Amino acid sequence: MAKRTIKPGPYIVPMPTVLVGSVVDGRPNFMTAAFCGIANYQPAVIGCGLNPTHRTCRGIEEHGAFSINVPSRDQVVVTDYCGLVSGDKVDKSTLFETFTGSLPGAPMISSFPLTAECRLLQSVPLGQDTLYLAEIVAVHAEEGILTKDQVDWHKLHPLLFTFPDAGYWAMGEYVARAWSVGKQHPR
Amino acid sequence: MAKRTIKPGPYIVPMPTVLVGSVVDGRPNFMTAAFCGIANYQPAVIGCGLNPTHRTCRGIEEHGAFSINVPSRDQVVVTDYCGLVSGDKVDKSTLFETFTGSLPGAPMISSFPLTAECRLLQSVPLGQDTLYLAEIVAVHAEEGILTKDQVDWHKLHPLLFTFPDAGYWAMGEYVARAWSVGKQHPR
Repeated sequence: MAKRTIKPGPYIVPMPTVLVGSVVDGRPNFMTAAFCGIANYQPAVIGCGLNPTHRTCRGIEEHGAFSINVPSRDQVVVTDYCGLVSGDKVDKSTLFETFTGSLPGAPMISSFPLTAECRLLQSVPLGQDTLYLAEIVAVHAEEGILTKDQVDWHKLHPLLFTFPDAGYWAMGEYVARAWSVGKQHPR
Repeated sequence: MAKRTIKPGPYIVPMPTVLVGSVVDGRPNFMTAAFCGIANYQPAVIGCGLNPTHRTCRGIEEHGAFSINVPSRDQVVVTDYCGLVSGDKVDKSTLFETFTGSLPGAPMISSFPLTAECRLLQSVPLGQDTLYLAEIVAVHAEEGILTKDQVDWHKLHPLLFTFPDAGYWAMGEYVARAWSVGKQHPR
């Protein structure tokens, strides 16, 4: 099929939808983010590209920590709300019951099915956004999304995010197993 | 619901499935990757965490460029196959018809619906993997996935990837619009 060259932009991959949490002025704050991806396997490192002028980023830089909070799709309204209002104007610490693990600077949302504490390794300024690279030091999951103590994506219903439509999407059906289905390819 | 603390790992977000392409020893090579995410809005920057011992990474480092090739879900077999075999043993340049744009070091797959040429900005060693951060300098899309010259995720059927199950997944249904649905939240 004929290809067309279109304006370059952050349109080329579906993204995860998360709330990034930190502690600012002594209380938890959360922002919606989708520029997030795994960067290293072991230790597990996640990168989040965030505009450093956000209140949440002040907390990340001050405490060297943040949390990743993965909503279920039925939490889309509060997830998007956290991207509409700044913690400078609205106290978002009252939106959620929170808990902490080993990193006091990484407050996690009790009602979200999957959360992680992340220790900042380095910040890479990229222009508009800064990429915060952090080690995932602990993962906390609701029992209901686990099978044999592992995250079961058949049970978790995460939200994906796409540009340029600024759309939230559900995850669809299981297609195939990696390092396996490719064996059907003619050699 | 009660939470359980589980072993930390790269299990906390769904990931995109792509083939990363580069030129090695004068011919295109491709590897399957999922540790990819947008890192900066403008200019659009993507980060890919790849084990630098891969043949593809030699090409990225030599030419300062790579391509991102987004498969449709019906291309899952060849996509996974590229992760099963090394270009050191199998000539993967024969698997696809390819084309290039402005970056000769970023060969793109003609049959994949969405491809991008990326110029390497910096490499961040993180342990096992190195994060290759690159500017998306051009995006090429099949006409069939565009609406008004923009990528239309209702028409593209990308593959997602999850750990620890090593599963490929389809994208599901549209849920809501960002910076909008959150207005339903009580203030």
